[in-house]
Amino acid sequence: MADSNKHFRLQDARQSIGQDVTIRGWAYNVRSSGSIVFLQLRDGSGTIQAVVAKDKVGGPSWKAAQEVTIESSVITSGTLRVDRRSPVGVELECTELRLLHRADEYPIGKKEHGVDFLMDYRHLWIRSPRQTAILRIRDTVVRAMRQAMHEMGFVLTDSPILTPTAAEGTSTLFRTDYFGENAYLAQTGQLYLEATAAALGRVYDFGPTFRAEKSKTRRHLTEFWMLDAEAAFVDFEQNLIIQEQLVMKILERVLDECREELKILERDLKPLENITRPFPRLRYAEAVAKLRRTGAPIKDGDDFGGDEETIISKSNSQPQFITHYPAAIKAFYMKEDSDDQRYVLNDDLIAPEGYGEIIGGSQRIDDLQTLQQKIKAAGLPLADYQWYLDLRRYGSFPHSGFGLGLERTIAWICRLDHVRESIPFPRLINRLRP
Amino acid sequence: MADSNKHFRLQDARQSIGQDVTIRGWAYNVRSSGSIVFLQLRDGSGTIQAVVAKDKVGGPSWKAAQEVTIESSVITSGTLRVDRRSPVGVELECTELRLLHRADEYPIGKKEHGVDFLMDYRHLWIRSPRQTAILRIRDTVVRAMRQAMHEMGFVLTDSPILTPTAAEGTSTLFRTDYFGENAYLAQTGQLYLEATAAALGRVYDFGPTFRAEKSKTRRHLTEFWMLDAEAAFVDFEQNLIIQEQLVMKILERVLDECREELKILERDLKPLENITRPFPRLRYAEAVAKLRRTGAPIKDGDDFGGDEETIISKSNSQPQFITHYPAAIKAFYMKEDSDDQRYVLNDDLIAPEGYGEIIGGSQRIDDLQTLQQKIKAAGLPLADYQWYLDLRRYGSFPHSGFGLGLERTIAWICRLDHVRESIPFPRLINRLRP
Repeated sequence: MADSNKHFRLQDARQSIGQDVTIRGWAYNVRSSGSIVFLQLRDGSGTIQAVVAKDKVGGPSWKAAQEVTIESSVITSGTLRVDRRSPVGVELECTELRLLHRADEYPIGKKEHGVDFLMDYRHLWIRSPRQTAILRIRDTVVRAMRQAMHEMGFVLTDSPILTPTAAEGTSTLFRTDYFGENAYLAQTGQLYLEATAAALGRVYDFGPTFRAEKSKTRRHLTEFWMLDAEAAFVDFEQNLIIQEQLVMKILERVLDECREELKILERDLKPLENITRPFPRLRYAEAVAKLRRTGAPIKDGDDFGGDEETIISKSNSQPQFITHYPAAIKAFYMKEDSDDQRYVLNDDLIAPEGYGEIIGGSQRIDDLQTLQQKIKAAGLPLADYQWYLDLRRYGSFPHSGFGLGLERTIAWICRLDHVRESIPFPRLINRLRP
Repeated sequence: MADSNKHFRLQDARQSIGQDVTIRGWAYNVRSSGSIVFLQLRDGSGTIQAVVAKDKVGGPSWKAAQEVTIESSVITSGTLRVDRRSPVGVELECTELRLLHRADEYPIGKKEHGVDFLMDYRHLWIRSPRQTAILRIRDTVVRAMRQAMHEMGFVLTDSPILTPTAAEGTSTLFRTDYFGENAYLAQTGQLYLEATAAALGRVYDFGPTFRAEKSKTRRHLTEFWMLDAEAAFVDFEQNLIIQEQLVMKILERVLDECREELKILERDLKPLENITRPFPRLRYAEAVAKLRRTGAPIKDGDDFGGDEETIISKSNSQPQFITHYPAAIKAFYMKEDSDDQRYVLNDDLIAPEGYGEIIGGSQRIDDLQTLQQKIKAAGLPLADYQWYLDLRRYGSFPHSGFGLGLERTIAWICRLDHVRESIPFPRLINRLRP
């Protein structure tokens, strides 16, 4: 029966030495030395050098070889030979070459380009080895995340993007007209997951979230992907273990499957390989004291900003849990610590190497009256939360959850300078194109 | 080392007969007969009957048993015993019962409720066996889709939701203010995937898409999930094969993993089990002739509406490809059939049993001039498409792709009357809540 993949692809080159194959792809480099043209080809699944020798191909193929420009698309046939000098270990001895499309002069050259230029040409920039490697790692991270959640018994229940209210106020939300009423693009699916958790026990969502924040930092996108998870009968402590297991599974999978991509990124693997469970924990109050000792101008009761996260992040070789933040600076739905009600049973997970927060989680308030008071105190309209309060009216249950930011996790794993390279088409406050 | 799942869950009940366990869950039914209370419990992973006998539990447990209402949350310990009368084959002989939260009178009863009522209580309705079964099947369909794409060599490259232009015009798009300029919620990631296909060869995205259409049919949501795929060097014919393999993989996985859920839905499995590749094909012109013979008032050159899809769908026991539509009624980017340029190399895949279109695909135009003319002819602003046209300037390549609608696929597999039950929190023109 016909197969989805009738063409040979370069990912199989190493297993096909000695065979005659036909390669469809693009030239990412061209070099000529008199009677030989060397084409560096990529087909999206791998790369190879194709050697076109004037005396081994026909006239039309030789003519085509002269015309190949950077990023031209070609179809070429030949035999796969061992080549110890090539990183792939294989090269193609061409017998035939056809130019599919001769590319115009490619705007992205070998010289250094400014970030704005590259971002304007993002649709072409993604063809570069570095960007392609990041995208492959992104694919692997997502597969690892989903598999980890499945293995831990979580069921995917997608949360809506268009929502009438905001979990934490509307000031940083994108708004749209929804057939005559206001709708907002969700920043988190958490509230909805608390509802599906009562149906399925353990649930997660994974989708784009939106933040209309005028933040211009290397950690902020206006559109980013988040995995939210929620688990019934899971307390603060067990919630941390689920987060640890998820992060470990991602790391294991990337280290297992993406060696080649990490090499292209020149990522030092040691810091990733050395990560082990359990991750160290620090209470907010201890973290503040520690930060103050480093000279950071933070006061007790302040929330951490990017600078504080960076200090904490750089001082650790392991992901670091910061727990028990002051209730006053955290979201209304977080459960207070019964030992000291000024604090909540929450955690932020700070990635090492300066990458800052990648997860935020907490145990949720399960008492109806407490939750009603908190919503009122937060200045949110109680009427909009009646359905959410219903979860405390009909079989309320202890539960906890968290959200993991995909792009920050990728930025850490790939050791990127800026989160913008971690997503195919980044959206920033000054960037909606291409 | 601590595990993510320290609690016993009902999914493991059958494997734990004779063991003493503690169950955390909700009562979905309560029945009393003098000195015995029968609690039907669910914990999100499974269901069980717990038998609380007055002479086998202490006073506090017996008192708790009297207080359990529908949807109350409980913790109960006891021994798992074989019970041939139960659908699970197991029951719990209680030794202890604790009421976690006594539910208020549950608004969803056994009597028939209207759809509006159930939709208003969607956050509770999802706890019902039927809704839970659909959500579990949804989870399985998504896992099957992702695995199928991975196995066929496709890399996930998420497309942006916030976009400055629309692939096919802005009339049915939700608009938002993006820091002073207009942004639209994407209806498809296709154009972006064509860019990443040039980087990675075979790519897909999977995310929410939005349609501000005033359609009030059983097939339309304003927010729905779509898998878009794009493959370099894949032509019209091979594109159909990829679609067939994807659909077959979904069916195989659901039939393999979701027997219990399909039983709850009373889904006749035969029509699903009988589906085989290759799927039958019909050209648009043949389909119109066939429809006219059934008396449908369609003229040559008309696009198919829901009614026509239903007729085609009901007359087939297999998914049916309709191909080669008139260029005039299809999107600008579809490649014309070189044998007859009035038609394009596209396909719609119509699910059987009356469910209509679940996939739309086509080979794309790869010639720069043709594409420019088509964009102009469609009345779209050429300036907005320069980045897209770049893909035809720098190594243009034959490529094809498609989009599969998740909710319609689920509606077919689960044989739902309306697509609204196929997503946790549906968005319809008159429905933005909860």
